[in-house]
Amino acid sequence: RRRILVTGGAGFVGSHLVDILMMKGHEVIVVDNFFTGRKRNVEHWFGHRNFEMIHHDIVNPLYVEADEIYHLASPASPPHYMQNPVKTIKTNTLGTINMLGLARRVGARILIASTSEVYGDPLVHPQPESYWGHVNPIGPRACYDEGKRVAETLAYSYAKQEKVDVRVARIFNTYGPRMHVSDGRVVSNFIMQALQNLTITVYGNGKQTRSFCYVSDLVDGLLGLMASSYTLPVNIGNPVEHTIEEFAMIIKNLVPGCRSTVATGAAVEDDPQRRRPDIAVAEAHLHWKPKVSLQEGLQRTIDYFKEELSRTT
Amino acid sequence: RRRILVTGGAGFVGSHLVDILMMKGHEVIVVDNFFTGRKRNVEHWFGHRNFEMIHHDIVNPLYVEADEIYHLASPASPPHYMQNPVKTIKTNTLGTINMLGLARRVGARILIASTSEVYGDPLVHPQPESYWGHVNPIGPRACYDEGKRVAETLAYSYAKQEKVDVRVARIFNTYGPRMHVSDGRVVSNFIMQALQNLTITVYGNGKQTRSFCYVSDLVDGLLGLMASSYTLPVNIGNPVEHTIEEFAMIIKNLVPGCRSTVATGAAVEDDPQRRRPDIAVAEAHLHWKPKVSLQEGLQRTIDYFKEELSRTT
Ligand SMILES: NC(=O)c1ccc[n+]([C@@H]2O[C@H](COP(=O)([O-])OP(=O)(O)OC[C@H]3O[C@@H](n4cnc5c(N)ncnc54)[C@H](O)[C@@H]3O)[C@@H](O)[C@H]2O)c1
Ligand SMILES: NC(=O)c1ccc[n+]([C@@H]2O[C@H](COP(=O)([O-])OP(=O)(O)OC[C@H]3O[C@@H](n4cnc5c(N)ncnc54)[C@H](O)[C@@H]3O)[C@@H](O)[C@H]2O)c1
Ligand SMILES: O=c1ccn([C@@H]2O[C@H](COP(=O)(O)OP(=O)(O)O)[C@@H](O)[C@H]2O)c(=O)[nH]1
Ligand SMILES: O=c1ccn([C@@H]2O[C@H](COP(=O)(O)OP(=O)(O)O)[C@@H](O)[C@H]2O)c(=O)[nH]1
Ligand SMILES: O=c1ccn([C@@H]2O[C@H](COP(=O)(O)OP(=O)(O)O)[C@@H](O)[C@H]2O)c(=O)[nH]1
Ligand SMILES: O=c1ccn([C@@H]2O[C@H](COP(=O)(O)OP(=O)(O)O)[C@@H](O)[C@H]2O)c(=O)[nH]1
Repeated sequence: RRRILVTGGAGFVGSHLVDILMMKGHEVIVVDNFFTGRKRNVEHWFGHRNFEMIHHDIVNPLYVEADEIYHLASPASPPHYMQNPVKTIKTNTLGTINMLGLARRVGARILIASTSEVYGDPLVHPQPESYWGHVNPIGPRACYDEGKRVAETLAYSYAKQEKVDVRVARIFNTYGPRMHVSDGRVVSNFIMQALQNLTITVYGNGKQTRSFCYVSDLVDGLLGLMASSYTLPVNIGNPVEHTIEEFAMIIKNLVPGCRSTVATGAAVEDDPQRRRPDIAVAEAHLHWKPKVSLQEGLQRTIDYFKEELSRTT
Repeated sequence: RRRILVTGGAGFVGSHLVDILMMKGHEVIVVDNFFTGRKRNVEHWFGHRNFEMIHHDIVNPLYVEADEIYHLASPASPPHYMQNPVKTIKTNTLGTINMLGLARRVGARILIASTSEVYGDPLVHPQPESYWGHVNPIGPRACYDEGKRVAETLAYSYAKQEKVDVRVARIFNTYGPRMHVSDGRVVSNFIMQALQNLTITVYGNGKQTRSFCYVSDLVDGLLGLMASSYTLPVNIGNPVEHTIEEFAMIIKNLVPGCRSTVATGAAVEDDPQRRRPDIAVAEAHLHWKPKVSLQEGLQRTIDYFKEELSRTT
């Protein structure tokens, strides 16, 4: 039984991680400023003796005690992180410095939630961890991409210089229940559109690809990485790749009686054209690979969004 | 006559810039923590009514008034910036945030000293500003490279979101008087070795290239960029490219009677293999190009190092 700090624990990924950690009997401290997260994601733990929720913005220092830190606090959806680029960078620089400083002081192991966006619009496919990436440092996505890249640099600088025990997960596109209905990511957009018989909005020609991982698989990967002795970055994602166009059809077909049409539109600036994780490192060092099929994961996610819709209408 | 803040103004580039600004009659405030800079570089201005020196570390907030800010504070030589990678990143993230916050508050135009290192070990040659770069986010140089990349991202995020008036100079290798005798960069190393008849130490096979700009040319470029209405990044450097091996011979031959031998040795990790600026943007928008030949610039630099040697021995 350990004291575990989860920054961004009221968010989509964080709240699923918190559920598992609580069910394993750990003491969990969630730190969140509710920028994109919601109390509702963790409210089922309110009042539990092992659970604590701190309303705090990590760009400011934080003094608590912990044995392990999962550092997930950061907006993750492009419309969210582009809304306030300065804040996105501050969260990933100042916020990460504060959490590394905390880890240093208390001697905690810290896992940094990095992202496949460190590879940018990749010229190598699929992307192994050794790939240096192809990122526009002054483009519209840079606040997130460069913020995460330098968060990794910070992690390894603290590891080398201050002997902080770091783990770095490069998370690829993840989906599942508790995604925000309006967070603007492709899974939530397409499912909400399909459920309401609205036009499914493909940005650009739809030939760009993504590879989607169900959230329970991701959480397993994060737990495995935290427990492992492997200290270099590890891709966590599902290597099953689809074009966004195919993806629109898959979702449409999973919603019985859906009458949505699929429309292509203007492309997004600097939109990565291909993305698929090479997960050989995770397989070898964490003995991890995803278990939930796209079909099954999407079905559960559609069920969740259906409930959300009926709750709000 | 303007009030001009120069961070890192006691350093190599900064002190030459301060000289020109003072000679033009401006009020100059130098902010420096003397990590790699020296009071001696600016002491000839001490007591001048237009000159002020503030001993301050820019990772902490700074409250002064200014019309223009040249933000140069950052270690620049690989051995210096790798010595304390955490501090290097803090200076380029926290320090840059503070200076952008200051610029925002007082409405000053701010020029960020970026670097050719944002291109990393480039796959495009020569490097135009549109090139996204090839940087290892977790390599030994990352604290500097990624720190500078995110400093650029910050600059354009503050420009977009807070209407801060930014300029970004991507500075290529620069040399001249007031370089540190022991700063470990190639020009100072080779000249000091040649002057003392010591072995000239080429790292790796010496086939890697660099393009060296004399400091007065760089300062002209920075002044031109600050005055210009062009807001995207601009390469400032000299496009005359040499291999490091050639460069060793050029320096040896400029030191009369030099008996040094040139020896190759172990290569440096992630050492960029080629570097040469494409300066079409500076030529078109700043009407700038370098004037001082390598021969002439090196001669002046050798004279300076000769004096340094006689002063200290
Ligand atoms: N979901 C994905 O597909 C994906 C992919 C790659 C990486 N990631 C990373 O995983 C992490 C979690 O992503 P998510 O999908 O759960 O996003 P999310 O937006 O649902 O969760 C992020 C949480 O961080 C909180 N937060 C943001 N800024 C904060 C600050 N300054 N101080 C305190 N809390 C703050 C938010 O309120 C939210 O609860 C993020 O770091 C993200 O970059 C996610
Ligand atoms: N000289 C080059 O070849 C070159 C090339 C590319 C970019 N640059 C950039 O130009 C700028 C100046 O470089 P330089 O060659 O004069 O280096 P330098 O080391 O001589 O000067 C840097 C100055 O910044 C000061 N400084 C460092 N950290 C500070 C902090 N936290 N607070 C306050 N002051 C601090 C140092 O004391 C020093 O006076 C740097 O930003 C560097 O990255 C230089
Ligand atoms: O328990 C702690 C310890 C540190 N910090 C923050 O982490 C930063 C970085 O820590 P580090 O040890 O590098 O910095 P220092 O204390 O030397 O400035 C500090 O500035 C603090 O703001 C924190 O939030 N909680
Ligand atoms: O309504 C939408 C939302 C997204 N996308 C595309 O789907 C992909 C994934 O986008 P998302 O914002 O989910 O995440 P990203 O992987 O770009 O961070 C990108 O190519 C988007 O342009 C789309 O076609 N329609
Ligand atoms: O004159 C100033 C104004 C701001 N800042 C610093 O710049 C940072 C970023 O400024 P911004 O306006 O973005 O931040 P805020 O004040 O909103 O935190 C602040 O946190 C201060 O630490 C400074 O050093 N001098
Ligand atoms: O004593 C030295 C110092 C540097 N170099 C090489 O010279 C080039 C320029 O190095 P410097 O440290 O001056 O600057 P950089 O351009 O790498 O930032 C690099 O290829 C170095 O490996 C060298 O061969 N011998």
